[in-house]
Amino acid sequence: MKRGFYIGRFQPYHNGHQSVLEHIAGEVDEIIIGVGSAQLSHLIDNPFTAGERVLMITRSLADIGCPLYVIPIEDIKRNALWVAHVRSMTPPFDACYSSNPLVVQLFREAGIGVQSPAMYERETLSGTEIRRRMICGEPWKSLVPSPVAQVLKEINGTGRLSQIARDE
Amino acid sequence: MKRGFYIGRFQPYHNGHQSVLEHIAGEVDEIIIGVGSAQLSHLIDNPFTAGERVLMITRSLADIGCPLYVIPIEDIKRNALWVAHVRSMTPPFDACYSSNPLVVQLFREAGIGVQSPAMYERETLSGTEIRRRMICGEPWKSLVPSPVAQVLKEINGTGRLSQIARDE
Amino acid sequence: MKRGFYIGRFQPYHNGHQSVLEHIAGEVDEIIIGVGSAQLSHLIDNPFTAGERVLMITRSLADIGCPLYVIPIEDIKRNALWVAHVRSMTPPFDACYSSNPLVVQLFREAGIGVQSPAMYERETLSGTEIRRRMICGEPWKSLVPSPVAQVLKEINGTGRLSQIARDE
Amino acid sequence: MKRGFYIGRFQPYHNGHQSVLEHIAGEVDEIIIGVGSAQLSHLIDNPFTAGERVLMITRSLADIGCPLYVIPIEDIKRNALWVAHVRSMTPPFDACYSSNPLVVQLFREAGIGVQSPAMYERETLSGTEIRRRMICGEPWKSLVPSPVAQVLKEINGTGRLSQIARDE
Amino acid sequence: MKRGFYIGRFQPYHNGHQSVLEHIAGEVDEIIIGVGSAQLSHLIDNPFTAGERVLMITRSLADIGCPLYVIPIEDIKRNALWVAHVRSMTPPFDACYSSNPLVVQLFREAGIGVQSPAMYERETLSGTEIRRRMICGEPWKSLVPSPVAQVLKEINGTGRLSQIARDE
Amino acid sequence: MKRGFYIGRFQPYHNGHQSVLEHIAGEVDEIIIGVGSAQLSHLIDNPFTAGERVLMITRSLADIGCPLYVIPIEDIKRNALWVAHVRSMTPPFDACYSSNPLVVQLFREAGIGVQSPAMYERETLSGTEIRRRMICGEPWKSLVPSPVAQVLKEINGTGRLSQIARDE
Repeated sequence: MKRGFYIGRFQPYHNGHQSVLEHIAGEVDEIIIGVGSAQLSHLIDNPFTAGERVLMITRSLADIGCPLYVIPIEDIKRNALWVAHVRSMTPPFDACYSSNPLVVQLFREAGIGVQSPAMYERETLSGTEIRRRMICGEPWKSLVPSPVAQVLKEINGTGRLSQIARDE
Repeated sequence: MKRGFYIGRFQPYHNGHQSVLEHIAGEVDEIIIGVGSAQLSHLIDNPFTAGERVLMITRSLADIGCPLYVIPIEDIKRNALWVAHVRSMTPPFDACYSSNPLVVQLFREAGIGVQSPAMYERETLSGTEIRRRMICGEPWKSLVPSPVAQVLKEINGTGRLSQIARDE
Repeated sequence: MKRGFYIGRFQPYHNGHQSVLEHIAGEVDEIIIGVGSAQLSHLIDNPFTAGERVLMITRSLADIGCPLYVIPIEDIKRNALWVAHVRSMTPPFDACYSSNPLVVQLFREAGIGVQSPAMYERETLSGTEIRRRMICGEPWKSLVPSPVAQVLKEINGTGRLSQIARDE
Repeated sequence: MKRGFYIGRFQPYHNGHQSVLEHIAGEVDEIIIGVGSAQLSHLIDNPFTAGERVLMITRSLADIGCPLYVIPIEDIKRNALWVAHVRSMTPPFDACYSSNPLVVQLFREAGIGVQSPAMYERETLSGTEIRRRMICGEPWKSLVPSPVAQVLKEINGTGRLSQIARDE
Repeated sequence: MKRGFYIGRFQPYHNGHQSVLEHIAGEVDEIIIGVGSAQLSHLIDNPFTAGERVLMITRSLADIGCPLYVIPIEDIKRNALWVAHVRSMTPPFDACYSSNPLVVQLFREAGIGVQSPAMYERETLSGTEIRRRMICGEPWKSLVPSPVAQVLKEINGTGRLSQIARDE
Repeated sequence: MKRGFYIGRFQPYHNGHQSVLEHIAGEVDEIIIGVGSAQLSHLIDNPFTAGERVLMITRSLADIGCPLYVIPIEDIKRNALWVAHVRSMTPPFDACYSSNPLVVQLFREAGIGVQSPAMYERETLSGTEIRRRMICGEPWKSLVPSPVAQVLKEINGTGRLSQIARDE
């Protein structure tokens, strides 16, 4: 039995994450998804709560055919402790997937191998770009799985983000 | 769609939790299980990590036939903020299940109704009793779902608990 | 101009505190009242929020004829830093009043003189005794200024305390 | 009885705050003033301690003719918990006044109405501008109530700010 | 080159610690001494600051003939992260010495071997017993290296401990 | 006996620090070196752990002929408490050496005199410049004492820094 770990902030969860996870699902038996910076929300760069992000991810992956653990991970703000922190919050895993250079370094120093899946269309498929579009009123729904758009409608996600982005 | 929230420390998850959750599964469409004091482990009263507890719960409820969210909840140590903390880490929920008097009070003050499911055989079916038996070398496996015994074997849970319970 | 500092947890504010503060009001021009362990509430030993305690104190001292600063002080959990913490949260003060041995020691080591006002009827006039009476349904209102009883009625203070004191 | 809540960092308290609070005093019976980021001081953007800010505010509003609660509010760094944090530190309030977009959003999501009083002369009447003038040695006293200038003289506020603004 | 790690709270440092360290000095080239619960002081069980304890240890081991690193270690309050925390604060080490059952377990789970040096005369040679004697005015100086008695005299350690042990 | 305190982040320790400390060694009997922001590592501006920095410093000063205390100091994030925090972690000191404007101000407000030793060749002899060279593959070893280069080789310091500086 092989369990893989994938971490992101998912602000919001988008098609780039979805395609990476569909790829990982073909390589492991179970997937752990760490929802990073779980304690942050209502910020321009981190607008959605951990619970809202858990909902986006779980609904988008309902049919992935692979058991999932979706786990909020609060920031520990001590990089030398971060891998131990992640491992204390998650079931044991054998493989790690990340393209974040710091995450790669921290797992490597802990003796855990990391694979860096290529994210295609990195320029448009990024949380930064999607949040920019939401604030500017440009179209963004094509960049996320449809359950994400549904969750964002339920919580009035664009309204929240637009309000906190207003200049005081 | 009705979503219910159930919280515990699950040190370890046992048959009492299992029977309550099977009951809740008949009342709601989706269940959120909060794993409390998630940051604690390797203590006589809190021996297992949040990740180990997530694994015990998920495996034990594999056949419950109801979507589950198993979410570690770190202590916030400010009771007046605890309900907001829980809600930030979980998908929205309509019903709360707990027999802990403080949890009941905090949710009530937040205007959220709480049901207190009766736990039968409270004396033997408690984490305290199970941990005592583990430390004393008495039989305990009949008190937990079999996947819990399996997880505890994999992580050498009784060995860990016995060691930290040794008198210095 | 002489400013005095008095600290307590005020769980709840009672006639003992009131008589000490009336005494202090005769010695200084302005009084700072530190509401200690401000982050705690909904606990058997610390049932009321800092805001509720601020309200009890302010109403009870409405006619004291001396300017008041009522300041919540969160615990810093590092005794060697506590005096600096208190001073950062309060206007400058010249005199300190406390009968708590630790508070006396910490101010002394910081080179600040402390006076220890005698509290009369210490056995009945204590937060511990008042909370015990509230839980047991015994009379307690004669031990607190009438505005405190009024605040506790508005927030259903005895109901809260009784509920969290229930045995699980 | 109507109680209003107004929050700011007050680095330092200035004529803009004063005029807003004089306006609020005409609408409510009691005012709670939250002193935000209370734990910060000795920074270029946050030079003064919470206690120093409490003193500036209390002295400037000595004649406002309305009971005041001036309450330091430490940062909680979890926006989803911030409203619960504020409410735990303050007496209950019915109305909230703020023109900060995030504060407006957080109170709205908590179901609390917010009014945004217009601040006139926003360009010169801002903490940023006053701190800039203090550092550059330009005139700033006309922008603050005279008790604020007095407090800043007593604590040598411009000296502190100028020193910490020096280039290492 | 072999570096050994030894951890304690050293409240205060006593002859038992001294004899263990003299033993360790014969086995390794350099010794790291972790001063645990570094953030605590002015408590009955933890009366002395980390800096005071560093001074006691360094002076007592001035002639040990082995390079020393005396490092304050603040509590992290998450046992699963504690070994990573210790390692981030200390130079790399190859061997660990402790008779604390939890420390032994945590290092073992991290794959680091631990030796448990026997402490002789455990009943009298304990911080608990020495603090008890200090509070009761009984003789204690024979239980500590003479530099420790000297440091405690300089900081008036028994005076501090006696004061904070007074009943309120 | 005169004890001096010197604080820095030492990311990494370099010849500028070394020359200042050699100067201080001529003025005091013992030196305390505070390793600031001790909890940070694996960041572009703070790549090395406190333990690694302790090792760099201790080895570089092996022959300074003056007793040293090398003490990690975690950030307290409350400037008004920082001096008390430093003093709780260190043996008592009589003199402070720093050219950081904030450190100077904080010690001055605490009534402790500060001397600001001139650092020569500030432009090249800075942690910022050395880290920049490490990332860019430019020569940097001439800017640090040779034991520092040795430590950085042992921990593959340039590899770590280059990896975390990669653009995601």
